[in-house]
Amino acid sequence: MPQYKAPLRDMRFQLNEVFDYAGHYASLSNGGDATPDMVDAILEGCATFCEEVLAPLYATGDSEGCSITDGVVTTPKGYKEAYKEYVAGGWQGLSHPQEYGGQGLPMSLNLLKSEMMGTANWPFTMYPGLSLGCMNTVFQFGNTEQKNLYMPPLVSGEWTGTMCLTEPQCGTDLAQIRTKAEPQPDGTYKLYGTKIYISSGEHDLADNIIHIVLARLPDAPKGTRGISLFIVPKFMVNADRSLGERNSVKAGALEHKMGIRASATCVMNFDGATGFMISEKNKGLEAMFTFMNTARIGTALQGVAHAELSYQGAVPYAKDRRSMRALTGKKDADHPNDALIWHADVRRMLLTQRAVAEGGRAMIYHAAKLADHMVAGVAEGNKAKYDDYDDRLGFYTPILKGFLTELGLECANLGMQVFGGHGYVKDYGMEQIARDARISTLYEGTTGIQALDLLGRKVLLQSRGKVVFGFTSEMIDQAKPHLLDGGPIGTMARTAFKRAIQWKVLTLRLMLRANKDRDVVSAACYDFLMYSGYVMMSHFWLKQALVAHKALASGKGSESKEFYAAKVQTAEFYFERLLPRADGHKKSMLSPTSAIMQMDNEHFSFN
Amino acid sequence: MPQYKAPLRDMRFQLNEVFDYAGHYASLSNGGDATPDMVDAILEGCATFCEEVLAPLYATGDSEGCSITDGVVTTPKGYKEAYKEYVAGGWQGLSHPQEYGGQGLPMSLNLLKSEMMGTANWPFTMYPGLSLGCMNTVFQFGNTEQKNLYMPPLVSGEWTGTMCLTEPQCGTDLAQIRTKAEPQPDGTYKLYGTKIYISSGEHDLADNIIHIVLARLPDAPKGTRGISLFIVPKFMVNADRSLGERNSVKAGALEHKMGIRASATCVMNFDGATGFMISEKNKGLEAMFTFMNTARIGTALQGVAHAELSYQGAVPYAKDRRSMRALTGKKDADHPNDALIWHADVRRMLLTQRAVAEGGRAMIYHAAKLADHMVAGVAEGNKAKYDDYDDRLGFYTPILKGFLTELGLECANLGMQVFGGHGYVKDYGMEQIARDARISTLYEGTTGIQALDLLGRKVLLQSRGKVVFGFTSEMIDQAKPHLLDGGPIGTMARTAFKRAIQWKVLTLRLMLRANKDRDVVSAACYDFLMYSGYVMMSHFWLKQALVAHKALASGKGSESKEFYAAKVQTAEFYFERLLPRADGHKKSMLSPTSAIMQMDNEHFSFN
Repeated sequence: MPQYKAPLRDMRFQLNEVFDYAGHYASLSNGGDATPDMVDAILEGCATFCEEVLAPLYATGDSEGCSITDGVVTTPKGYKEAYKEYVAGGWQGLSHPQEYGGQGLPMSLNLLKSEMMGTANWPFTMYPGLSLGCMNTVFQFGNTEQKNLYMPPLVSGEWTGTMCLTEPQCGTDLAQIRTKAEPQPDGTYKLYGTKIYISSGEHDLADNIIHIVLARLPDAPKGTRGISLFIVPKFMVNADRSLGERNSVKAGALEHKMGIRASATCVMNFDGATGFMISEKNKGLEAMFTFMNTARIGTALQGVAHAELSYQGAVPYAKDRRSMRALTGKKDADHPNDALIWHADVRRMLLTQRAVAEGGRAMIYHAAKLADHMVAGVAEGNKAKYDDYDDRLGFYTPILKGFLTELGLECANLGMQVFGGHGYVKDYGMEQIARDARISTLYEGTTGIQALDLLGRKVLLQSRGKVVFGFTSEMIDQAKPHLLDGGPIGTMARTAFKRAIQWKVLTLRLMLRANKDRDVVSAACYDFLMYSGYVMMSHFWLKQALVAHKALASGKGSESKEFYAAKVQTAEFYFERLLPRADGHKKSMLSPTSAIMQMDNEHFSFN
Repeated sequence: MPQYKAPLRDMRFQLNEVFDYAGHYASLSNGGDATPDMVDAILEGCATFCEEVLAPLYATGDSEGCSITDGVVTTPKGYKEAYKEYVAGGWQGLSHPQEYGGQGLPMSLNLLKSEMMGTANWPFTMYPGLSLGCMNTVFQFGNTEQKNLYMPPLVSGEWTGTMCLTEPQCGTDLAQIRTKAEPQPDGTYKLYGTKIYISSGEHDLADNIIHIVLARLPDAPKGTRGISLFIVPKFMVNADRSLGERNSVKAGALEHKMGIRASATCVMNFDGATGFMISEKNKGLEAMFTFMNTARIGTALQGVAHAELSYQGAVPYAKDRRSMRALTGKKDADHPNDALIWHADVRRMLLTQRAVAEGGRAMIYHAAKLADHMVAGVAEGNKAKYDDYDDRLGFYTPILKGFLTELGLECANLGMQVFGGHGYVKDYGMEQIARDARISTLYEGTTGIQALDLLGRKVLLQSRGKVVFGFTSEMIDQAKPHLLDGGPIGTMARTAFKRAIQWKVLTLRLMLRANKDRDVVSAACYDFLMYSGYVMMSHFWLKQALVAHKALASGKGSESKEFYAAKVQTAEFYFERLLPRADGHKKSMLSPTSAIMQMDNEHFSFN
């Protein structure tokens, strides 16, 4: 059973040495309180909470799952107490405005918290996690009354929130939403309809649940321009925030899922439920998508979380379990066989997990700085700043979400693979990680949707390639001074340099092709996404390796020396063993679309 | 929920048009009865049984699972009746000798049967499937008395069998086996020990269960040369085959697994159980490995089975479910959105599944012909023939087992991906396929073990590359006449030709490197396995495309025309979109071993 230990050594390396978060926070209008001491205290405190409270509930929550009786959902044993402790610790409001009781810290600190919590226990973390979207929406689009009414208990965590988008007939294609909102004489609305796959739609952790619901007014235009957004509380809220009568929104059922079984995924029935419009009439979808980037980066975290947890489970097993002799001869001479970790193929699996966990962490920590600026823009009432950083973030989002969750799933499967047959049975805890990881490429936009967003929207439509060219310039700038270096640094810098140029050229080629053949975008987008992910990760591995190499050269303390050396070694592994996969994606995305498009729909099966 | 339909059109195409099974059977000493009419009757009869009896039990068996009370295992509802019908149909003895009540047909027919049964319901198929190993062992190594006693009810299916290898401390590394066999004055043995992960170790489908058990005699040498093989029946068997007293071998527990939940995976306790030695003292492991190749090909089938079933689930959903407009504009003008199948990225996923299912089928049908010759060698008492074909098969086995199960798992995951969020909930039946597929890369030798077997043993040690060179010669012979062809055939032939040469060169390079650095084998083996799989599959896709292209040119009937055209199109997809992955594996396997080996064992984690 993996024993979660917060990877503070690596987190600090990246925060302090690679990404200079101290400098970053000092530059933020809301970063003043995030002093190095404060950040350290948060990391330590959160680590303890995750290791001692959340991690022990990970396996038990899975085997117990949630249950529902007459619309009342019961979460697994221990969840209530853990959530209480979470609220008492003030963890929910870390990055939310002080005027509503939060700590007003930069949102990247919330991401660090989510990373640790999610790695220790992803399904638990979804309960407070879903509140974020709700809070962001209320804060950004609610009127003063709505903000005053709902924000404080959401920020404290006494209440939680949901996002109610999906309906049986549509997930991605929200234009097809049918839930109705009928205006009432008092200015409220009555909502009718069914929403499915609503995470934390109903549970027993909080006193109230605030649903953010997409629905249509009776006279609404068809499609996406006829969707409005509503606040629908589980219990009506009086002006003094005391709870009134039960609203007619009920959980009709729980979904039986492959994994994240401790997270209550609900069918929610709105049967004349009272709702309050938020944002403008028919502009609900825009509002809903406002914080899409941060929500998707929150899901990208899942890739890192499961790679990390599965790695933490696999390493001790590989050191402990013995099988056969290593091919180069006896390693553990006092035993008849060698520990798994001596076998190169096992090391390949472990290093893949590590390279993904640490490389993905770097990608997210970089993006989180942009998100901090974006959120600061909101707080400063600086729309232009918000838009600028939202755009910049928009390039990273689909890559992080699509690529890191695909790799997280692979790494969770590799963790099982290290365990051999033991990986497949529940007792060892490795298969749960793979089942939990499996959702990450599906929700918050499937990998295909991320890929389409990246290539179709962000790269071709919105920027004519500029987002890629901007990033590849950064890659070139980083690599250039080291092209003539000896040793692994020089090798990696030259490779990154070449990949940057290759990525740029590829983007140009796809642009030209897409002008002539619109199928290119959908046919190539998955391979483009994965290619982009591998090349982007190489940039962040080189970045880490450069810092570690420099630290080694400057002769830091001996424990750190080992850490830095292992960092460079993991970077080498990434460049030598994982980055080459980009070649297959490159060739595949450039192949003619006919190979995908020519088959007649009716010829997919013959009996 | 996928509705299994036996892919008879494709099976017949491959059997009759690609691999000339009629000619093959005519050439076999035991193939006389396998006339085209007989083969057809078997295919039809088996298809009906699988579609009507086994497929409906697939999902229910998973949700119910097996249960155990006081050592008595109960299989899911309907399993008993289905198994009865299986036995009544004479399906178990299809390829077993007529002298023991079997039908004496070539073993490839048994593989076709297993393919259909396994696709319809893999966990069910494991019950009769495990008997095969037991029957093969008894038939090959039992004395006349043992054969007469055990074979008839095993062949009829009234009894089932198991293979008891794994113990808590060892799976792959069987040298570490501890189960003891103490000789008794009457020539029998008393067995003491615990075996784990014993598929079908205990269940309620058959009257008796015959365990084949690896154990050590008290004076046995250490390691693999001190292991003997024993027959341990659940109920003692009287000379007239009536059942005697209950033997002291008991199921202590059932494993709780990620998938194949309807298959009873047992902890088996041998507490002074009476056993009968089979084969020679201390030569048990050799005997056990005799039919390893066919057992592993039986597991390779699982890759094809799950790719096929997941594809069968995904295609109708992709035609039925609508989301967004295709990028090239309205396709289903009478709806506000287009069916998923119009989206190129969805087609990419479907075609990947199809290319793996049909390409894998071809690889297995080719290998099955070799297995037929091998088994004929046994029947003819021709050891040289047996050895020759066993050697030839030995090259295919790790590639088929390792590569096809990895791709089968990927395809099962793609099937979920086509369903979006619906793929993750149990109601749609797609996630079960992914959970069931997950075991296939673990049991019967993990992918890493297959990879080591391929590169270390079959390619380098045993043949100094000759097995690869033999196969690449076949590839070149097939491609050469078409190098100047126009259209897709010419393109594919040229690619296959180049890949054959590349594979050969790669093998030589690895041989040279391995001479200097033994770590090369273990560090490169996984990438070599996957590379070999992709290139080998391209050969079998070209083979199918050539047949289909020729048939098209000769102007066959219109339904067939569509089938042949789709075949060539699927081949094109394979060459353009999947084969390029070989490039990443090529680069990765040639990278320095230091990237994997240099990290100190103690530096895999830092806290």
